[in-house]
Amino acid sequence: MLPRLNRLFAADGRCFDVAVDHGFVNEAAFLTGIEDMPAVVRTLVDAGPDAIQLSPGQARHLQDLPGPRKPALVLRADLANVYAAELPRVVFSHAVDDAVGHAVRLDAACVVVNLLVVPDQPDLHWQCVRNVSALKAACEPVGMPLMVEPLVMKAGYAVDGDADKIVGIVRQAIELGADIIKADPTDDLSDYHRVVQAAGGLPVLVRGGGRIPDEEVFSRTRALMQQGAAGIVYGRNVIQHADPAGMTRALMDIVHG
Amino acid sequence: MLPRLNRLFAADGRCFDVAVDHGFVNEAAFLTGIEDMPAVVRTLVDAGPDAIQLSPGQARHLQDLPGPRKPALVLRADLANVYAAELPRVVFSHAVDDAVGHAVRLDAACVVVNLLVVPDQPDLHWQCVRNVSALKAACEPVGMPLMVEPLVMKAGYAVDGDADKIVGIVRQAIELGADIIKADPTDDLSDYHRVVQAAGGLPVLVRGGGRIPDEEVFSRTRALMQQGAAGIVYGRNVIQHADPAGMTRALMDIVHG
Amino acid sequence: MLPRLNRLFAADGRCFDVAVDHGFVNEAAFLTGIEDMPAVVRTLVDAGPDAIQLSPGQARHLQDLPGPRKPALVLRADLANVYAAELPRVVFSHAVDDAVGHAVRLDAACVVVNLLVVPDQPDLHWQCVRNVSALKAACEPVGMPLMVEPLVMKAGYAVDGDADKIVGIVRQAIELGADIIKADPTDDLSDYHRVVQAAGGLPVLVRGGGRIPDEEVFSRTRALMQQGAAGIVYGRNVIQHADPAGMTRALMDIVHG
Amino acid sequence: MLPRLNRLFAADGRCFDVAVDHGFVNEAAFLTGIEDMPAVVRTLVDAGPDAIQLSPGQARHLQDLPGPRKPALVLRADLANVYAAELPRVVFSHAVDDAVGHAVRLDAACVVVNLLVVPDQPDLHWQCVRNVSALKAACEPVGMPLMVEPLVMKAGYAVDGDADKIVGIVRQAIELGADIIKADPTDDLSDYHRVVQAAGGLPVLVRGGGRIPDEEVFSRTRALMQQGAAGIVYGRNVIQHADPAGMTRALMDIVHG
Amino acid sequence: MLPRLNRLFAADGRCFDVAVDHGFVNEAAFLTGIEDMPAVVRTLVDAGPDAIQLSPGQARHLQDLPGPRKPALVLRADLANVYAAELPRVVFSHAVDDAVGHAVRLDAACVVVNLLVVPDQPDLHWQCVRNVSALKAACEPVGMPLMVEPLVMKAGYAVDGDADKIVGIVRQAIELGADIIKADPTDDLSDYHRVVQAAGGLPVLVRGGGRIPDEEVFSRTRALMQQGAAGIVYGRNVIQHADPAGMTRALMDIVHG
Repeated sequence: MLPRLNRLFAADGRCFDVAVDHGFVNEAAFLTGIEDMPAVVRTLVDAGPDAIQLSPGQARHLQDLPGPRKPALVLRADLANVYAAELPRVVFSHAVDDAVGHAVRLDAACVVVNLLVVPDQPDLHWQCVRNVSALKAACEPVGMPLMVEPLVMKAGYAVDGDADKIVGIVRQAIELGADIIKADPTDDLSDYHRVVQAAGGLPVLVRGGGRIPDEEVFSRTRALMQQGAAGIVYGRNVIQHADPAGMTRALMDIVHG
Repeated sequence: MLPRLNRLFAADGRCFDVAVDHGFVNEAAFLTGIEDMPAVVRTLVDAGPDAIQLSPGQARHLQDLPGPRKPALVLRADLANVYAAELPRVVFSHAVDDAVGHAVRLDAACVVVNLLVVPDQPDLHWQCVRNVSALKAACEPVGMPLMVEPLVMKAGYAVDGDADKIVGIVRQAIELGADIIKADPTDDLSDYHRVVQAAGGLPVLVRGGGRIPDEEVFSRTRALMQQGAAGIVYGRNVIQHADPAGMTRALMDIVHG
Repeated sequence: MLPRLNRLFAADGRCFDVAVDHGFVNEAAFLTGIEDMPAVVRTLVDAGPDAIQLSPGQARHLQDLPGPRKPALVLRADLANVYAAELPRVVFSHAVDDAVGHAVRLDAACVVVNLLVVPDQPDLHWQCVRNVSALKAACEPVGMPLMVEPLVMKAGYAVDGDADKIVGIVRQAIELGADIIKADPTDDLSDYHRVVQAAGGLPVLVRGGGRIPDEEVFSRTRALMQQGAAGIVYGRNVIQHADPAGMTRALMDIVHG
Repeated sequence: MLPRLNRLFAADGRCFDVAVDHGFVNEAAFLTGIEDMPAVVRTLVDAGPDAIQLSPGQARHLQDLPGPRKPALVLRADLANVYAAELPRVVFSHAVDDAVGHAVRLDAACVVVNLLVVPDQPDLHWQCVRNVSALKAACEPVGMPLMVEPLVMKAGYAVDGDADKIVGIVRQAIELGADIIKADPTDDLSDYHRVVQAAGGLPVLVRGGGRIPDEEVFSRTRALMQQGAAGIVYGRNVIQHADPAGMTRALMDIVHG
Repeated sequence: MLPRLNRLFAADGRCFDVAVDHGFVNEAAFLTGIEDMPAVVRTLVDAGPDAIQLSPGQARHLQDLPGPRKPALVLRADLANVYAAELPRVVFSHAVDDAVGHAVRLDAACVVVNLLVVPDQPDLHWQCVRNVSALKAACEPVGMPLMVEPLVMKAGYAVDGDADKIVGIVRQAIELGADIIKADPTDDLSDYHRVVQAAGGLPVLVRGGGRIPDEEVFSRTRALMQQGAAGIVYGRNVIQHADPAGMTRALMDIVHG
């Protein structure tokens, strides 16, 4: 077992990771609620999730805080230009140069990278395969866990919840050597055990998504944990919430309850 | 002789390698029967073929098992996006970064890589030539055997069994420095000695293919072994079989009989 | 804190950097007033701003001068071909090979690189992302501060002062790991605090632009400093001025006043 | 003088090199007469030319033979896909990764690489320039001689014997740093001294070609040796001959006579 | 000052460099008068200019000569395919692999590289920028002077003598870090001081061009030296002359007179 995983997952083997890496992709609309990053990170640290997911340039807000009892850092290792309603003429997903070096220097517990499948964009898929493969080779010698985020899109940056498609790409991520999977909910939540099975015993964290009512967040989370998920990676449903600290506590209860 | 070959081939110089690397290429249809990899690998290990072929991320299911008396690991070193009925707009075959480093760390006995020829896709062929050439350069200093899988396709991911074409591409693989060849059966099985000859004394393992009746598998295997093949690399005809263990024993008898 | 920042920013945490790197991009029209670089640099050194921004080949005019009491060197690390009224068929932004090595050898206090967003040129944006990312990885091990210059253009090399767009790209620069931001004024100057906020506590220097009347330069500078800017990077309004030394003194008063 | 040249050229400064590298390029038609490489190499070794030209994967047939009194190994360092009657949509000429490392390990006396000029394929020419340039840089530190094979084609893989064109491309090979030239006969054999002159004192070996009657081979060889050639590199006229050993002896007499 | 410059420039700070690198670019028409390179170099060495400019493969004709009193070697570091009347479908300018390593091993006093601007070929310009930038990074650690040859073309390989354009590209070469400039004459020779000024104190050598009458060569050279040029780099007007030795002496008198 990679020692850093013991900083990321609680003793019960579960993890709630709050993602605040939306500012990486140059979409002004994604910044709502996270305009003031020093304040956002302070709020989240006080709320106490297991981990916070940040880009290399924002990690300092977390890692400059003194003392060991704070959320672990999950370092976002890539950025893409595919999040607008209409795709640009050339799409890219770039893995940050020496991302694992940054992760080690920043004392991250994990790096996370996308594995994107967008309709009729095989070249983007290829770029992501190269990114995952290169990060795996860099992670291995230093014992840095690699979280892969396989993501099947429909046209217009909408998530495709088809279970077969999610299982297929999660499996590819596992075969490439992912240590942790971050995967979207399936359209039918009761199919999610297939996603968990595709990970072959490695932990699967559920990807959040756009803002939805609290009760829906809670019930969905409970259902997915019952299907075998090891935790969640939520962003907007926490940081755009009126009470991020309360929301964090409620979700911690569900994940670790 | 490369010492690792003595872990891959039995003392009679023959080898039965079971391929379970179909999950690498993001095709949901390929996962039938291998959804639960920990269970699949356990079943196969108990059945006892000479080797099991796995991707870097799945190799742990085999290599975490204790003791030396288990099948050798053949590490799949590349993945492509050419297995759907219709080819994508951009095709790729990517060799995993530091594949030979992974192989050494995982104590593999061999790495395997494709050399694909698809109608009107010279760029894919070029990518594969680069992959084989780069792997050869990485294998040599550490004594890692290189298995090359030359594969001529017709349109629509169908294998082309034309003997001239198979001999031509097998020869290219040998000239590039393959230590072992994994090649398709020729349409006329009695032509297979030409494939064996093209390998110039190096071992040729027969590539399996889609699911067919047991007796056909057995008779074809016998015929190809008589043509000089040194063994077989079968996947679906073992792992999708109702009795993988029995199928493995039967094929071991033919290969080593 | 990176020690070199103490050579770039005055003790009050502010900085006036004069940019004279316009000759890097092969636009004859940009050379007006800076044809004679040895003379230009001498004039500026006498005027005494905090820093002078020069390309690798011109840095010698500053760094060959004896004694420690002279402006710090900000080394321009890239050059592009997007400054003519009409874009060429292929656009590029090239980061100088071993730019950080040059910066260390030249005893620079900082390197500066563009992050360009031009309408319908996603590939140029990608190139810039790669440049920033590669420079960040090179800067980190040697403690070289990285200034990023995010720049949103309209068609025809005109700056787009839309606050949302500037905030979005400044944020991306910060997430990539910029230590200092050089950003354009927003159309409505009273929006500039949003740009400052996007930098999350790191210093923002205001980018100048084409030649405008002195009083406009002064009043705009004052307004932006009040919005939280840490200083300015001006070029043509100083070096094309009839009295560069007087202009420098006046701007130093505003920045440090 | 590079010491390895003394293993390649006889004491009279002349060399007969038999090329058996036709299997490298995946053209079934090129394999006639060389299907059984162990046998082919044994026959040639017995016949005793100065050198045999083989790809990395076939070199073992020569280099595994004991004793110093055998032909030197000329290692083919590249493979292309331009040998069919119709060119593919994408053409390539790939220099084998770490070719010079392979050459050193295999104790080769020389590496050989193409410099191809095909009508309206400037990109192929560029690839070859890169290959030659990269090999030169790799050869120099280890004292490995570099043979360059400049080759001007007409449409349909036909050699262009125009003396001006051959002289132009031979000259480019020499300027790039070739140690030995392998060049086609000129249409008018009496022009061949111009090719020799273009090499500026370095040895020129004549390239063979398709199968022609024995007497024509002999008379052409004599004529070209009189024009100043230092030897020959023949393939099909030896290995497809009914009596390769006799043919080799006859040509050795002409080259060294 | 880079010590090698003292081998390139005479004690008066001036230099006459004879270029004989025309054979690098595969244009048969460029070889007139330089078919026999050993003889050409011997003739030039006897004539005694300050330097001779040769490609890596031809440098031996100069550097194998014994004794220190001979012209310095200027090593041509790149080759392009843009010299025919009609441009090919793909244009390239390739910097020789490890050019600076070759220069050091060959004891060159300088390397020279093109910075080409051809109408509607921005990609070629980009390639040249990359070449210059990469060479600069390689030259710096070993103290190898870098001569850059900025060259603005009109359609059909004709030099564009527009002073603004020449000044613009010379300036770019200087900003990239050129130590020496080799620049075309301006249409109006009396504009040449602007080119000299653009070099900011670094030496400018005048580029020659096609064959013209002796007196025109002399008067033009005198005019340009009076404008501040530090010397000349001539090729065809020396080597295609009936009396290269006499021509060299005459030009040495003008340059150093």
